[in-house]
Amino acid sequence: MWINVAGAGAIGLLVGARLAEAGQEVRMITRTAEQAAVIRSGGILLSVEDEKKRISVGATERREAAADGSLTILAMKSYDLGEFVGAIGDVPGGAPLLFIQNGVGHLPLASSFRHRPVAFGTVEHGAKRTGQGSVEHTGIGPIRISAVSGDFSPFLPMFKAHSSAFPVLRAEEGPESLLLKKAIKNCMINPVTAVAGVRNGELAKDPHLRAILGRLHTELAGAFPEMANEVTLDGVLDLCRKTAGNTSSMLADLLAGRKTEAGAIMGGVIGLARARGVSLPALESLTDLVCSMERRKGRHG
Amino acid sequence: MWINVAGAGAIGLLVGARLAEAGQEVRMITRTAEQAAVIRSGGILLSVEDEKKRISVGATERREAAADGSLTILAMKSYDLGEFVGAIGDVPGGAPLLFIQNGVGHLPLASSFRHRPVAFGTVEHGAKRTGQGSVEHTGIGPIRISAVSGDFSPFLPMFKAHSSAFPVLRAEEGPESLLLKKAIKNCMINPVTAVAGVRNGELAKDPHLRAILGRLHTELAGAFPEMANEVTLDGVLDLCRKTAGNTSSMLADLLAGRKTEAGAIMGGVIGLARARGVSLPALESLTDLVCSMERRKGRHG
Repeated sequence: MWINVAGAGAIGLLVGARLAEAGQEVRMITRTAEQAAVIRSGGILLSVEDEKKRISVGATERREAAADGSLTILAMKSYDLGEFVGAIGDVPGGAPLLFIQNGVGHLPLASSFRHRPVAFGTVEHGAKRTGQGSVEHTGIGPIRISAVSGDFSPFLPMFKAHSSAFPVLRAEEGPESLLLKKAIKNCMINPVTAVAGVRNGELAKDPHLRAILGRLHTELAGAFPEMANEVTLDGVLDLCRKTAGNTSSMLADLLAGRKTEAGAIMGGVIGLARARGVSLPALESLTDLVCSMERRKGRHG
Repeated sequence: MWINVAGAGAIGLLVGARLAEAGQEVRMITRTAEQAAVIRSGGILLSVEDEKKRISVGATERREAAADGSLTILAMKSYDLGEFVGAIGDVPGGAPLLFIQNGVGHLPLASSFRHRPVAFGTVEHGAKRTGQGSVEHTGIGPIRISAVSGDFSPFLPMFKAHSSAFPVLRAEEGPESLLLKKAIKNCMINPVTAVAGVRNGELAKDPHLRAILGRLHTELAGAFPEMANEVTLDGVLDLCRKTAGNTSSMLADLLAGRKTEAGAIMGGVIGLARARGVSLPALESLTDLVCSMERRKGRHG
């Protein structure tokens, strides 16, 4: 049985290409018939540094196809998830779903799939879509997967693709904690790079931006004390240095005049904190700035 | 005796011109001999809407001149004040000083002038310097003056220039309260317009920027409860609407790659709050963003 990858943006194309390269039968579910045709005829062109490789995968624009595979990986942006999930519905006995979105806003979706195995993953790869069927792999990082139910076996096909170029790991923790940990890092790096209009490395170099990261960390550690040891300020600054040349997805979205994931990433975390009776004034202010820039179609461009 | 106006930026030129227009003998103290020569020979060219008027004033670049007049108005930016005040020293029996800077950081300066009458003023005019000796009067607002000592008489010469085009009022409150009230308004309008890169009116129109103003107001009202009724959120939003087309001084400074008054305006208020044991995370984050943009020479430009 094949694996469906629904969503053919940078991460969807990367995951599809790497799974197929490792011998899995992959079918992309695209938004448009045009993109499906491009991918069906030409495969996915995967670039890693100077090497280019063309990888054959199936492709369809029919969302219903998500019912047929052995596993469907949902790789669209979080704000497109609601519409997609509504369209595939909850078929009893349906195939397993793996969500790999940023943020924590989609966690409650799991409860609407009582008849399917559901897992959540975090993706630490860097990828850049360079065409309808082409993607550049710009940074290697693990995909970590945590299943909602106790039975992990429906997600084992992912591990067949594990390699040093595409590490797939089972998370040591439950989905809530896994996604929150990633979301907290994103809440520190994404809005500050987006508002200041800088690459990741600048957050570790500029004393004022570093001060903002420190303030965000203090604020988030107050709201989520169980995470304070898991996501340290030094760890996040290290991550900024290691990915110094990267343009965060949120800055890239603003620069391109696209919708950002502010709602899913910062909005989700702000909502969780609010449910605990804690407000996050620095993060909320940065989020409003990102939303305002998005509303004015980004002024970096 | 003449009135000295030390500092020939937009506000200094406006105040000098309006005082001279009202019959006061005015002498500008400029930073450079070149600017003094321009003003000595051509006076100050004051533009109001389509009307232009050339007004004769004296001018010198010698700082020591600040000892001779009946009153010296210090009209340079707050970050230049320390150097100027250091240079004029504290001559026993010296002439009265009127400080009209933004912020609250210069309040402690009063205590270093035990032998002179000292007053602080707030300026609500809009003014734009258009050349070394020319200024445009873009918005009329009162100058309010509050004296540190009980004796107000040394500052009465200012009131001789009072008119509907240049209102000069005696403040109903002490200097601390007068400056803090102005600084709180500036802390809401200046950093948000600067970081978002928008004119004042946008703060009342854009729902996300309005949300930031609301958050700043809540935060500041918590730190300065005695000010909460004096500076209301509605009042500040009204001010943004009334000055909708204005570019805040902080945004103008960033756009021109000049040093901003972030230290004097936000830094001063943050310091006062800290002295009360209160932190202002949203204001501190915005301040760091302004400082970071200033450090990178503004990215609006």
